[in-house]
Amino acid sequence: MELTHFDKSGKAVMVDITDKEETKRIAVAKGKIKVNDEVYDAIQKGTSAKGDVLATATIAGIMAAKKTWELIPMCHILKIESCKIDFESDETNKQICCTCTVKTTGKTGAEMEALTGVSTALLTVYDMCKALDKNMEIEQIYLAEKDGGKSGRIVNER
Amino acid sequence: MELTHFDKSGKAVMVDITDKEETKRIAVAKGKIKVNDEVYDAIQKGTSAKGDVLATATIAGIMAAKKTWELIPMCHILKIESCKIDFESDETNKQICCTCTVKTTGKTGAEMEALTGVSTALLTVYDMCKALDKNMEIEQIYLAEKDGGKSGRIVNER
Amino acid sequence: MELTHFDKSGKAVMVDITDKEETKRIAVAKGKIKVNDEVYDAIQKGTSAKGDVLATATIAGIMAAKKTWELIPMCHILKIESCKIDFESDETNKQICCTCTVKTTGKTGAEMEALTGVSTALLTVYDMCKALDKNMEIEQIYLAEKDGGKSGRIVNER
Amino acid sequence: MELTHFDKSGKAVMVDITDKEETKRIAVAKGKIKVNDEVYDAIQKGTSAKGDVLATATIAGIMAAKKTWELIPMCHILKIESCKIDFESDETNKQICCTCTVKTTGKTGAEMEALTGVSTALLTVYDMCKALDKNMEIEQIYLAEKDGGKSGRIVNER
Amino acid sequence: MELTHFDKSGKAVMVDITDKEETKRIAVAKGKIKVNDEVYDAIQKGTSAKGDVLATATIAGIMAAKKTWELIPMCHILKIESCKIDFESDETNKQICCTCTVKTTGKTGAEMEALTGVSTALLTVYDMCKALDKNMEIEQIYLAEKDGGKSGRIVNER
Amino acid sequence: MELTHFDKSGKAVMVDITDKEETKRIAVAKGKIKVNDEVYDAIQKGTSAKGDVLATATIAGIMAAKKTWELIPMCHILKIESCKIDFESDETNKQICCTCTVKTTGKTGAEMEALTGVSTALLTVYDMCKALDKNMEIEQIYLAEKDGGKSGRIVNER
Repeated sequence: MELTHFDKSGKAVMVDITDKEETKRIAVAKGKIKVNDEVYDAIQKGTSAKGDVLATATIAGIMAAKKTWELIPMCHILKIESCKIDFESDETNKQICCTCTVKTTGKTGAEMEALTGVSTALLTVYDMCKALDKNMEIEQIYLAEKDGGKSGRIVNER
Repeated sequence: MELTHFDKSGKAVMVDITDKEETKRIAVAKGKIKVNDEVYDAIQKGTSAKGDVLATATIAGIMAAKKTWELIPMCHILKIESCKIDFESDETNKQICCTCTVKTTGKTGAEMEALTGVSTALLTVYDMCKALDKNMEIEQIYLAEKDGGKSGRIVNER
Repeated sequence: MELTHFDKSGKAVMVDITDKEETKRIAVAKGKIKVNDEVYDAIQKGTSAKGDVLATATIAGIMAAKKTWELIPMCHILKIESCKIDFESDETNKQICCTCTVKTTGKTGAEMEALTGVSTALLTVYDMCKALDKNMEIEQIYLAEKDGGKSGRIVNER
Repeated sequence: MELTHFDKSGKAVMVDITDKEETKRIAVAKGKIKVNDEVYDAIQKGTSAKGDVLATATIAGIMAAKKTWELIPMCHILKIESCKIDFESDETNKQICCTCTVKTTGKTGAEMEALTGVSTALLTVYDMCKALDKNMEIEQIYLAEKDGGKSGRIVNER
Repeated sequence: MELTHFDKSGKAVMVDITDKEETKRIAVAKGKIKVNDEVYDAIQKGTSAKGDVLATATIAGIMAAKKTWELIPMCHILKIESCKIDFESDETNKQICCTCTVKTTGKTGAEMEALTGVSTALLTVYDMCKALDKNMEIEQIYLAEKDGGKSGRIVNER
Repeated sequence: MELTHFDKSGKAVMVDITDKEETKRIAVAKGKIKVNDEVYDAIQKGTSAKGDVLATATIAGIMAAKKTWELIPMCHILKIESCKIDFESDETNKQICCTCTVKTTGKTGAEMEALTGVSTALLTVYDMCKALDKNMEIEQIYLAEKDGGKSGRIVNER
């Protein structure tokens, strides 16, 4: 099998999807950010009384998912029909876990959109908390699930 | 200490940098992507004869670093004066390691730009190789080094 | 009835339009800007001999309508199929009245595109005339008419 | 006095600011949106337990203020150094009032940035509430205050 | 026949494509850049050992083709389904010749996308070589071929 | 001399301008478009009574010049302080000639901004006239003049 983004002489091209059919597609990506105690607590409080880191990150993630084709050179423009960002807090590991679910009806999958949504949401958490922790780490960004299109349903466990 | 992106009532604001001084600043971010053998080999060959995944990822990373302020809601517009993306291949672990170094002269640091550059470069590697591996993982994105500005030099080891 | 942009726990999401049908849709938004005599006259002359404030505002409005999904966080990408900006001058009240008509074939309406087109056109008038009047006011931006889609034809009179 | 965005033959140009001096500048713009009772109540509740219309609108307003130069044809790129969006609720009139305060150090004022921030924040409120009220109106967008630069301090009362 | 982008009173509008049918469309645009000997040789070497001017220009061209609707005021948003940039080197005339092929399924043609892809690719060659030659020239950008849509197949020879 | 956009191993980088001084800079680029008689006449009339192709192209050129750094991968963000687009009509050759003049105060020159302004203005003319002429050609885009910065004043005659 070959890398699909290069033509025979090895030059970058967009994959030609002209002859593919439009199907309903879904992609779910996940990732997390490891923070220190102080940030972890600030984020928890943030969701109630103070500011809301995760609300800001949610919006940033959705907006970035819509712009994936502007960021990733060989991505096609995709009309995202649904984008959802969810966060879970893992108290033991002081991690904030992010899930981005993207749905579309199109000729190509939405996995890059879901992955870009997760990445940007986590970068936004980083940005809003970096005054309190200069050593956070974004971890384990991967495609958790995908359906629709030629390769069918894929589920990646972690 | 407090989260800096919220005002007293907890609402998101951009940090006010009006009264800060312009200084030379540098930020270095790192991250990696874990791939399967087939992708690892394709990328290695890509840097010589065939297409070049890492060349495409380099350009995507640089272009995204310049757009950080469009992606991360509370980031200031920053005139990046230098941006460099480097890749190293870790054969043992089948990982492609990415470093993004950003320099600027400004009132605020360039760490988000470096982190966004790394993230987008790695997402581009993902996009270009996803036909060969549906289970890649982007890992360990962090700020390796930072200098300039009030908080001075910070080095994070891994 | 509930706000449609929030899920059950109250977090912002894009409305899921996957299962909606594509229909022809039209939206007409209106708004106006109140200016002083000097600006009013300059704009009138501008349409003949001098520069043309309204030509510039027309183009800005159309370009912004196309970018609505980039500006309004929960808006879907919409392939606008027609966008028209019209201005009328109300001599008595020294107001410039703007109408933006957007057509599309899609799963969601074009009212935000029409409203964004009007807003940006009026902001452009403001920008180009602000040397002559530091106290202009943008007024009465509303959806005048809408058709297509589940809620059918809506007409708002003023 | 003449419209500043046109040259002698009447063609649109950016005002040449090469020879102006960088000064600290501030601009405050205001605007409001008139909603029905149902929306008014939903927004009030939204700020506590449920979703948060105003949090989303705040972020949209800040992000749009940074992109003003992309939207308004003759605007210069401005490095915004501070942007703040505030909302007040006027129960009697069922209006949500928005204030956007922008600061910068530059050769040109930030009034268009403040006005674009207000407009986009109000459009976002509109978008998020339009399922509940098809007849909202955005009203009275104006420059409340401005300081710095050649024309000095300007205060517009309403 | 009339200019299609203006309405009866002469004001700019987007052409209304609501009632057109979606068809498969292809557009091929060409252009070239005339460089001095030093640049010509650097580019040739660049494709093997050193840096790769043409790889960078290829990516820039593809990314710009996707953004055509943002750059050209009256262009519709088009979901590009394939975009390919090819370069040929003309040793005799020291010219780098660029071809951009765009495919889409839509209501309007892709010629502006192909032309924007070529223009931006050539501008990128210019940018990357301008230290070696301050007198390059971009030449002969034209639509070489077009098919699909009402006007059928068009071939322009040079 | 070497291509400046590649590091020692040949990989694309932004030129590091951290240590350069801010100076006043000007760049003037020129280009033209060859059209048929019908288009030539329509454009001439357009500047008086009907629509105005050149007014639209002027605005598109200025807006694109501001976005040069988004389009050309290795370009730095530049705060353009003045941008002017001029057209001349060459009746004998049925050519529309475009000049774009950009001024800035910065660490790097504005030639790419001026060239991007010209290219986009000419592409806009193409777009607006393509219904009347399917064989137009954009020609002779070059840097006519440049001043400021290390390499001093450069004038290219044609």
